[in-house]
Amino acid sequence: MFRLDSQLAADGRLIASLEASEWLLMNDSRFVWLAQVPRFQDARLMVHLPLELRRTVREESDLVVEILRSAFNPDHINVAQIGNMVSQLHIHHVARFTDDALWPKPIWGQTPPVPYREAEYRDRLAVLRNYF
Amino acid sequence: MFRLDSQLAADGRLIASLEASEWLLMNDSRFVWLAQVPRFQDARLMVHLPLELRRTVREESDLVVEILRSAFNPDHINVAQIGNMVSQLHIHHVARFTDDALWPKPIWGQTPPVPYREAEYRDRLAVLRNYF
Repeated sequence: MFRLDSQLAADGRLIASLEASEWLLMNDSRFVWLAQVPRFQDARLMVHLPLELRRTVREESDLVVEILRSAFNPDHINVAQIGNMVSQLHIHHVARFTDDALWPKPIWGQTPPVPYREAEYRDRLAVLRNYF
Repeated sequence: MFRLDSQLAADGRLIASLEASEWLLMNDSRFVWLAQVPRFQDARLMVHLPLELRRTVREESDLVVEILRSAFNPDHINVAQIGNMVSQLHIHHVARFTDDALWPKPIWGQTPPVPYREAEYRDRLAVLRNYF
């Protein structure tokens, strides 16, 4: 039984469920910031996933990196498993621009998020869902 | 032809060369902080690597996560591709402890590194090389 961590659920909204993972758009309007959450209970690290699932999770990650490149043409993409605050395994995917609010710093552990306005959040979710 | 980025070479020392990557111990005595550098010129993202190499790079990453668990018994491990400052693809692997200097923050973009004393650096490299 997989249950999405309540903090992740509070911090983002579902874009789509792919074969191996839930994909969330995190509520910080400064960035196109996605979290991939493999549907496997009690994993904190990739090595906790069965090999076959691990492979699919990574294929999905690569696919979504290509989606971010196509949809937003960013200068760079950060892909990170941090999970110090939320222990359920999740992999951040963040499209970065050299003129974004925190460049060249990583976005985590810095200033607080700037939530989307509702219409803006829905628009970005719609754009992303088109690609998923 | 692969050449290790000069900034990475200045910030760490070689632990070992595995099949697909150079593995460096970064010069910050506060953390067991390794950087994996795939031997492929001109990649900034994992998706820039040929599929076969990408797979081997990820297998090595999983192997080294297991090494970090065995050798240091950390509370958690951060695995991250950031690369905003150094564009050559490199994947950070950091053993984290709930009483370390920056927990629960990520270690990047925070306070400056605290370099090892020479003997301490050599000792830790020797410990790691034993596992590689």
